[in-house]
Amino acid sequence: METKSIKAFGTEAAEAPLKTLDIQRRAVQAHDVEIEILYCGICHSDLHSARNEWRGTIYPIVPGHEIVGRIVKVGDHVKNFKVGELAGVGCMVDSCRECENCKNDLEQYCDEGSVLTFNSPDKHLGGIQTFGGYSQSIVVDESFVLHISDKLDLAGVAPLLCAGITTYSPLKHWKVGPGQKVGIVGIGGLGHMGIKLAKAMGAHVVVFTTNLSKTEDAKRLGADEVVLSTDPEQMAQHAKSLNFILDCVSAEHNIDSYLNLLKVDGTLTLVGAPMDPLPVASFSLILGRRSFAGSAIGGIAETQEMLDFCAEHNITADIEVIGVNDVNNAYERLLKGDIKYRFVIDMASLK
Amino acid sequence: METKSIKAFGTEAAEAPLKTLDIQRRAVQAHDVEIEILYCGICHSDLHSARNEWRGTIYPIVPGHEIVGRIVKVGDHVKNFKVGELAGVGCMVDSCRECENCKNDLEQYCDEGSVLTFNSPDKHLGGIQTFGGYSQSIVVDESFVLHISDKLDLAGVAPLLCAGITTYSPLKHWKVGPGQKVGIVGIGGLGHMGIKLAKAMGAHVVVFTTNLSKTEDAKRLGADEVVLSTDPEQMAQHAKSLNFILDCVSAEHNIDSYLNLLKVDGTLTLVGAPMDPLPVASFSLILGRRSFAGSAIGGIAETQEMLDFCAEHNITADIEVIGVNDVNNAYERLLKGDIKYRFVIDMASLK
Repeated sequence: METKSIKAFGTEAAEAPLKTLDIQRRAVQAHDVEIEILYCGICHSDLHSARNEWRGTIYPIVPGHEIVGRIVKVGDHVKNFKVGELAGVGCMVDSCRECENCKNDLEQYCDEGSVLTFNSPDKHLGGIQTFGGYSQSIVVDESFVLHISDKLDLAGVAPLLCAGITTYSPLKHWKVGPGQKVGIVGIGGLGHMGIKLAKAMGAHVVVFTTNLSKTEDAKRLGADEVVLSTDPEQMAQHAKSLNFILDCVSAEHNIDSYLNLLKVDGTLTLVGAPMDPLPVASFSLILGRRSFAGSAIGGIAETQEMLDFCAEHNITADIEVIGVNDVNNAYERLLKGDIKYRFVIDMASLK
Repeated sequence: METKSIKAFGTEAAEAPLKTLDIQRRAVQAHDVEIEILYCGICHSDLHSARNEWRGTIYPIVPGHEIVGRIVKVGDHVKNFKVGELAGVGCMVDSCRECENCKNDLEQYCDEGSVLTFNSPDKHLGGIQTFGGYSQSIVVDESFVLHISDKLDLAGVAPLLCAGITTYSPLKHWKVGPGQKVGIVGIGGLGHMGIKLAKAMGAHVVVFTTNLSKTEDAKRLGADEVVLSTDPEQMAQHAKSLNFILDCVSAEHNIDSYLNLLKVDGTLTLVGAPMDPLPVASFSLILGRRSFAGSAIGGIAETQEMLDFCAEHNITADIEVIGVNDVNNAYERLLKGDIKYRFVIDMASLK
């Protein structure tokens, strides 16, 4: 298959810093859209993968799955996209499209494993891994390309493709809305989107943080109440009162203390992914028919729905725009939590 | 308040064997029903409470919350019960009746804590604890009394009041029915009822056991398939295939290995109550939007629904009938799992 060499920013080893690389993109096929990448968000999983912290990384790796840009070419059979339009790509670029989950618009749970935007076997180029959005351009089947509104700040839209859909999907699935009291645990890349989205859906939003200095910021983002989770008295005031909790924390934390804040039939859904197993007391679940759940990104149709919802409600991520040469430093700051709340790479800096 | 002395079987200390005791029951009030107890099932929580294993036991204790018998007296304002009818009492004898959960027919999750059939503060006698069904008779407000069909074996009905409703309620709540593949983990007092009920609801029932010798029995009870849970190959054959799992195991066990058998959006619900916290890997939940839940008995209206369902489908518990003087020995056999599947005390033996 014909390919084209482009510039990207990635790494050839777990211990090496990221640097400029040359990678191959396939030529545009009949159903493909080629996007010139304008901005790409930095997700914590970029860092995990670049450093092989989840194992299984194939090198070289080019991270990035919060991609927005402008369409520069479309294949002959492309129906829904035109050259010159804005477009986005999230965590997936393909899936089997035939299993029950794919047919139910849940491509993220594809039985064959969805083709991830980076570090997955590339269906078209055979065996070679996919390369992500820290790059000049990307070629993706139109079924996995999203429409992007021109009404929002484009750099702030990029993180919606992962942090946005990861929080939107469970809030929708568990039917968060007016009249409900909803907890958001953690104020970071995911949590700050969770606050904005839950508020826009009409819920009364209670934010839980270990960092009192984030109180004002949480309120600015839309929190109705902010609770210092290390204060047992503040926690006790919310016992058995929440309909739903979106848990955005990736570090070890006490799940039982949050489960006990749920009303009967309430659910706590994990979207962060702590490395070690989380201990759960059976009575935290039994005494209140509570559920401890998890959720991964969202399907393509739901991602479009989320983007449209954000355009309607004027929601973007709070970001700090950087150049590619700042990426290694940004990773270090990410580890310290020194970012409000998402780094976004201005891809023009790669040229 | 006027009281009546009756014979019961209980214990005055955690270390002491159960023996015949005299206890006081209140005189029948306007809304009360007095039941001559014919049979009372032995639940594992009777043993936990008699031995103070969950702490908080008040002595003397008279266990027993799987009660069936015949009505011998009703109060002036009793509307739904008549002298001479069969009746049952389960795990609760009252609740606040005013909180959101009570109003939603979820008295088991009463905000004030429901009044349990034994070892709860007695609302009528003030401060003195409630005494359970290992006794000649019981006086209960009609709102917490159940109608019992005369079509079923009465001794086999007794365990429906706890083991039956504990398994029926989650199967109903999570909408188990035809076309679904449902797992039942553990074949004991709870599990054997779970198998019968899930089968009667029309599901394809897969039973998981660590004890291969129970295979034939599981099939007799209604299992379509039996899986030896210690065999990774057998477990792998069911990966991502179950809609719902009812987990009836009270001992420590690996929750992740069962979560990974669930399809997308599947739920594993705990009705056993392991003492130690259960570790759960975040990815077991996230990769499939799965839920780990718990459920406690069921409300009064749902308990009546369950009893009617069992009468319609000719379902009772598999039991071994014993006399009160066999109770201490039965507790020892219970600890060894040496019972298929529930002891029921013939209360005539107390006279």
